[in-house]
Amino acid sequence: MSTPSAVGILAGGGPLPGRVAEAAAAAGRPVFILGFEGFAEPEVIGPWPHEFVRLGAAGRMLSLLRQHNCSDLVLIGPIRRPSLRNLRPDAEGARIMARLGRALFAGDDGLLGALVRILGEEGFHIRGAHEFLTQAVAQPGVLGRVQPDTQAQADIQRGITVVQALGRLDIGQGCVVQNGVVLTVEAMEGTDRMLARAGECRQPGEGGVLVKMLKPGQEKRADMPTIGPVTVQNAHAAGLRGVAFEAAHTLLTDRQRCIEEADRLGLFLLAFDPVEGAGTSTAPA
Amino acid sequence: MSTPSAVGILAGGGPLPGRVAEAAAAAGRPVFILGFEGFAEPEVIGPWPHEFVRLGAAGRMLSLLRQHNCSDLVLIGPIRRPSLRNLRPDAEGARIMARLGRALFAGDDGLLGALVRILGEEGFHIRGAHEFLTQAVAQPGVLGRVQPDTQAQADIQRGITVVQALGRLDIGQGCVVQNGVVLTVEAMEGTDRMLARAGECRQPGEGGVLVKMLKPGQEKRADMPTIGPVTVQNAHAAGLRGVAFEAAHTLLTDRQRCIEEADRLGLFLLAFDPVEGAGTSTAPA
Repeated sequence: MSTPSAVGILAGGGPLPGRVAEAAAAAGRPVFILGFEGFAEPEVIGPWPHEFVRLGAAGRMLSLLRQHNCSDLVLIGPIRRPSLRNLRPDAEGARIMARLGRALFAGDDGLLGALVRILGEEGFHIRGAHEFLTQAVAQPGVLGRVQPDTQAQADIQRGITVVQALGRLDIGQGCVVQNGVVLTVEAMEGTDRMLARAGECRQPGEGGVLVKMLKPGQEKRADMPTIGPVTVQNAHAAGLRGVAFEAAHTLLTDRQRCIEEADRLGLFLLAFDPVEGAGTSTAPA
Repeated sequence: MSTPSAVGILAGGGPLPGRVAEAAAAAGRPVFILGFEGFAEPEVIGPWPHEFVRLGAAGRMLSLLRQHNCSDLVLIGPIRRPSLRNLRPDAEGARIMARLGRALFAGDDGLLGALVRILGEEGFHIRGAHEFLTQAVAQPGVLGRVQPDTQAQADIQRGITVVQALGRLDIGQGCVVQNGVVLTVEAMEGTDRMLARAGECRQPGEGGVLVKMLKPGQEKRADMPTIGPVTVQNAHAAGLRGVAFEAAHTLLTDRQRCIEEADRLGLFLLAFDPVEGAGTSTAPA
C-alpha cells in the first residue's frame, strides 16, 4: 500500500498552522510545515516535521515541498507583505517574482491570487484551510449566549453594506458601526488596530459592532478572514457589543474559547449569511 | 442709512473663523462670533466681537445672534461630535435636540444638515464659508511647483473612485493610495490620524497620495473638507508624494503657506475636478 501524499502547510503566524496539521494528521495524511521566518511560531510548528524558510526563498520552498512528497498545500496564518529589500529572493524566487509581475504591487487579493495560481502551475493543489478545519467554520446563527438586539442587527446590516462596497474596491474586510455611524474602516492596518481606533472614536449611546467578511473575489484559499479570542477581547475593550462575521467564510482560531470569551464579556458572536442578512432566525450553529 | 445686518460666525477650532471674519468685515459687514467652548481658539476670535457658548446652549446662542442683528450665519472650524452628557442642553437646546431627533444619531451629514435646516427655520440664512473665502477655494490645477507623475495620477484616480464610494455610504472624506493599494481609509478619526496610520502601513516603492473630497450630499455649508499647512506636513511625514483635493469644494486654511510647505517638502498639491479626473492639463489656479 502506498503512503498517501503529504499536506504541505505554508505557515504564517498564530495557532492555525498547528490546527491544520492536527486535522490533516487526524485524516491520516502525513504533514510537512514550511514556516515563514519571522511569522511562523516555533512552538506552533515545532511538534511537526518542519523547516523555517525566508519568504523570498521560493526555490528552497519548492524543493522542500517536493522532497517531502507534498501534493496539497495550505497557506495559513498571517504574514505581512514584505518589503522588496527584506525579500532577498533566491534564483527561483526571482523567477517567481517576475511571474508575479504587477501583482506584487497590486492589492493583496492580486498578490495572493497570483501566488496560488503559480503554485498550481508548479503542480501543487492549493486547498483552503477551511477544507481541513471544518469545526472552525461557523454555520449561520448566534454562537454563545448573547443575542444581538434590533439596533445591533441594524448596525450589522449597515456594516455588511459597507464592507461589501469596500470589498468590491479591494480595500478591506471589516468595519465598525455604532448606531448607524461608521466609526472606522479597515484597510491595510488590520482588525486589531481598527478596533483600538474604534474605541477612541466611540460615540455616546449603545456600543457598536464589528463586521468582518470575505471580499468578493478574494482568494479564500490564501487569506480567509479570521476571528480569535483576542478579537473578542479587543472588541470588548473598544466598547463594542458584538462581533458579526460571514458564515462559512470565516475561520475561528479557537471556536470554544471565542464563545467562552464572548459569554464572559457579554458580547454576541453572530455568523451571518450575507444574502439572508443580520437576522438571527436561523438555527444556532 | 441703515447698518447692514451682521454676519454671525459659529466658530469651531482653527484659524478659519478669523479668516471669515476678516473677509466679511472687508466686505463692509459687521461681524459677531459665537465661539464653541473647548473648540474655538481665544486668540482667533478674540479680536472680534464675540461670546463663548457651550455647544448645548442653543437658547443662549439664538438670543445672542438676534441681539447682535445677525442675518447670515457661517458654521466654520472643526468641532467633535459631543457626548450627550457634555451637551447639557438649555431649554431651547432641548427643544432643538427634539427637533433634530434621529439625526442626532445618524451620520455627520444628517446631523449637520438638520442643524442647517433648523437654523434656517429660525429665520437665519446659512452661508458656506467658501462664499466669503473665495481665495481659499482652489480652481482645478496644480498649485505649487511639484507636478504629479503618471503613477501619482493613477493613484489619485483610484482614490477618487474610493472616496466617492465611501461618500455614497456617508463614511468619510479621504483615503491614502500607494501604487494602486489603498493603505488607509478615513472614517470618524479625521485626516491627521489617518495620515499617521498611512505612514505605518507604507509599502515599498514610490510614496502614495492623499485624496480628499466632499461627500455626495454632504452639507457643504457646515462641513467642507479642509487642507492646511499641517496637512501637507503630515502627508510628508507619512511618506506621501502629494495631496489631491476637490477643486471648489475644499477650503485651504492658508493657501500661501500650503503652497510654500508643499514646495519646500517636495509634495504636489493638486486641485481636481472629479468629473475631469486627476489630469493636470487644466491651467494652474
